[in-house]
Amino acid sequence: MARKPNIVILGAGYAGMITATRLNKELDANEANVTLVNKHDYHYQTTWLHEPAAGTLHPEKTRMKISDVLNMSKVNFVQDEVVEVKREEKKVALKGKGDIDYDYLVIGLGAVPETFGVPGVFEHAFSKWTVDGVRQIKDHIEYQFAKYNNEEEPDDSSLTFIVAGAGFTGIEFIGELSERVPELCQEYDIPRNKVKMYVIEAAPTALPGFDPELVEYGMNLLENRGVEFKINTPISEVTSEGVVLKSGEEIKAGTVVWATGVRGNPVIEKSGFEAMRGRVKVEKDLRAPEHDDVFIIGDCALIINEEINRPYPPTAQIAMQQAAVVAKNLKALIKDDALHEFTPEIKGTVASLGGKEAIGVVGNKKLYGNSANFMKKMIDNRYLFLLGGPALVLKKGKNPF
Amino acid sequence: MARKPNIVILGAGYAGMITATRLNKELDANEANVTLVNKHDYHYQTTWLHEPAAGTLHPEKTRMKISDVLNMSKVNFVQDEVVEVKREEKKVALKGKGDIDYDYLVIGLGAVPETFGVPGVFEHAFSKWTVDGVRQIKDHIEYQFAKYNNEEEPDDSSLTFIVAGAGFTGIEFIGELSERVPELCQEYDIPRNKVKMYVIEAAPTALPGFDPELVEYGMNLLENRGVEFKINTPISEVTSEGVVLKSGEEIKAGTVVWATGVRGNPVIEKSGFEAMRGRVKVEKDLRAPEHDDVFIIGDCALIINEEINRPYPPTAQIAMQQAAVVAKNLKALIKDDALHEFTPEIKGTVASLGGKEAIGVVGNKKLYGNSANFMKKMIDNRYLFLLGGPALVLKKGKNPF
Repeated sequence: MARKPNIVILGAGYAGMITATRLNKELDANEANVTLVNKHDYHYQTTWLHEPAAGTLHPEKTRMKISDVLNMSKVNFVQDEVVEVKREEKKVALKGKGDIDYDYLVIGLGAVPETFGVPGVFEHAFSKWTVDGVRQIKDHIEYQFAKYNNEEEPDDSSLTFIVAGAGFTGIEFIGELSERVPELCQEYDIPRNKVKMYVIEAAPTALPGFDPELVEYGMNLLENRGVEFKINTPISEVTSEGVVLKSGEEIKAGTVVWATGVRGNPVIEKSGFEAMRGRVKVEKDLRAPEHDDVFIIGDCALIINEEINRPYPPTAQIAMQQAAVVAKNLKALIKDDALHEFTPEIKGTVASLGGKEAIGVVGNKKLYGNSANFMKKMIDNRYLFLLGGPALVLKKGKNPF
Repeated sequence: MARKPNIVILGAGYAGMITATRLNKELDANEANVTLVNKHDYHYQTTWLHEPAAGTLHPEKTRMKISDVLNMSKVNFVQDEVVEVKREEKKVALKGKGDIDYDYLVIGLGAVPETFGVPGVFEHAFSKWTVDGVRQIKDHIEYQFAKYNNEEEPDDSSLTFIVAGAGFTGIEFIGELSERVPELCQEYDIPRNKVKMYVIEAAPTALPGFDPELVEYGMNLLENRGVEFKINTPISEVTSEGVVLKSGEEIKAGTVVWATGVRGNPVIEKSGFEAMRGRVKVEKDLRAPEHDDVFIIGDCALIINEEINRPYPPTAQIAMQQAAVVAKNLKALIKDDALHEFTPEIKGTVASLGGKEAIGVVGNKKLYGNSANFMKKMIDNRYLFLLGGPALVLKKGKNPF
């Protein structure tokens, strides 16, 4: 009998988790060794993080222990940080545990914040959309409120909140925050008019690529909650006092949240893959060019939408679809079958706006308010169902009613 | 008919609230105008504040709107800050609303932190035992935990907590905090051994004046939860990095909570009353010496315990007893009757240690653990009962079972 091949999956995000789950179904235990490497022993829902960041959902709701979700008799889990992929040697260098060998590698390492070279982001803004990161955003926000009434001469800018970026993350975050601000004002005895919220976006529109009618609906709704939009307004620097705009104008703020988008994981470039902003333009079968044994999916993969000749945005939806194809292709490689091509199927996109509000497109249908909110929650629950069946939906799911 | 006298009560703490409540019972509406002046429109339970400070009780549980508790048809409530008592003119200068006249004045303005001249307390330590102040302590503590895992190279001293002072406030606060630390560690994924807690006390014992056997019980219990005591250890400075001890040793800490005791309100000295640490040695009838029209009670009043020739500590228990006597004496003044003398009656003293633990003396009986905890909660509820009857106990009370 031939040696069982080692399949190594890097990262336990949407891409890695669904790959592992699907592999368990595609392959028998005697057909391959499956190893999953992740920094933490938990998986979390990146697309939900705007909620715990604003304090409208407990962070525990967004994460789950990997061992509670995956069948640990079929997956070897290694908790460690990936340093580099040694492609020639077919090894992955880990920070703590040294090198591990692979026959087939799946890179699903996720993204890091994109600063576009703006100085001061890492020093003065909150940019980490992780469980650790959003807990800090939430507690920082609450501390701004708690501090205010204790100051001899309160500085009103400490209650100014700037969100840099009007993409999905920025809009969904300000949606939650604007919904929570009245509660925070009441909790901490702060007059509502002391709190200011800005969304600053360099591009000529909020939610670029989204239906303009829905964007307008969303912006109006957020403006009615007191959010001020500055569109077409590049930021030139983040400082300890707030942001400086390209126009020279300075906006003082106690909190700057950075949500201008992401780039692929630095491990990609460090490992010598040809990449644009950390993302590798993968083949139709999702392998890295000139690599028969390395699949790259999720935030580190670049796939062009040929209809508009622009990359698909890195979404959970696409990552999960890629993971399903990769699981099939790993099976095909082992069985020496033909590989499948990946075609994204965009079923819909819904952005929540806090409270019971959302906007979205599902199929050709535009959705607003309650019905969009319902769809958003159903989408969130569908993922849990794919990952862990009805038990996981009951445990961590959202009630859409 | 003679002009109705103006009775003005300054401060809505234990002293002022009970004075107002009792006056409502002692006097008819046509016998006097009663005015209560307070900075906030709410009353709060100073003796409970160690709980919201550590985050083991919601701060709303410790406060109540004055208008929800007092009969506002019998009390004229003025929300303002007291600047000074103009004794000669029989006026009180308010920050916002100018002067108000009194015929009889009750000063129950409470206390401010005592620094004993240690530099850096107000700049670098948390010293405000108020609703605003403890919300900031709680949110600061949580932020220390939230920040830790996001640092490239976490500084362990950010998870060191120093409590300066092993009196009632310091011990009760560290009791709550030490009870909560394991929860915080779990919530924020922090190994328990990263967290350090110190109680630093200049005096030769914790809880001076308390039964030594109970003190030992309490210290052992807290040490078992990881608290390190440094007794007989004066602090010479608080810095942005922690504290410097008189020995020269430095202890780095992300949080220093100041609880070394209090002094009387600065308004006392500003108004020209003869005082020691802001406290006026009042007459037996609780009037200020040489003032027929000014009562001083609560934290601004100094009364000597002649048995040991030392002042009684400023407690809620004594403030409430004083308030009852002052209400009677105001009636006596108006009716031209003889005034009553005040004699403190110490019914018992219980210090909570967090969770279901406490130590105390009630009558001649020493209490530990559950039974002391039961007594503590009964004492807390008894005050609510005196203030607002059974409805207030049900709304804001503590379940001792």
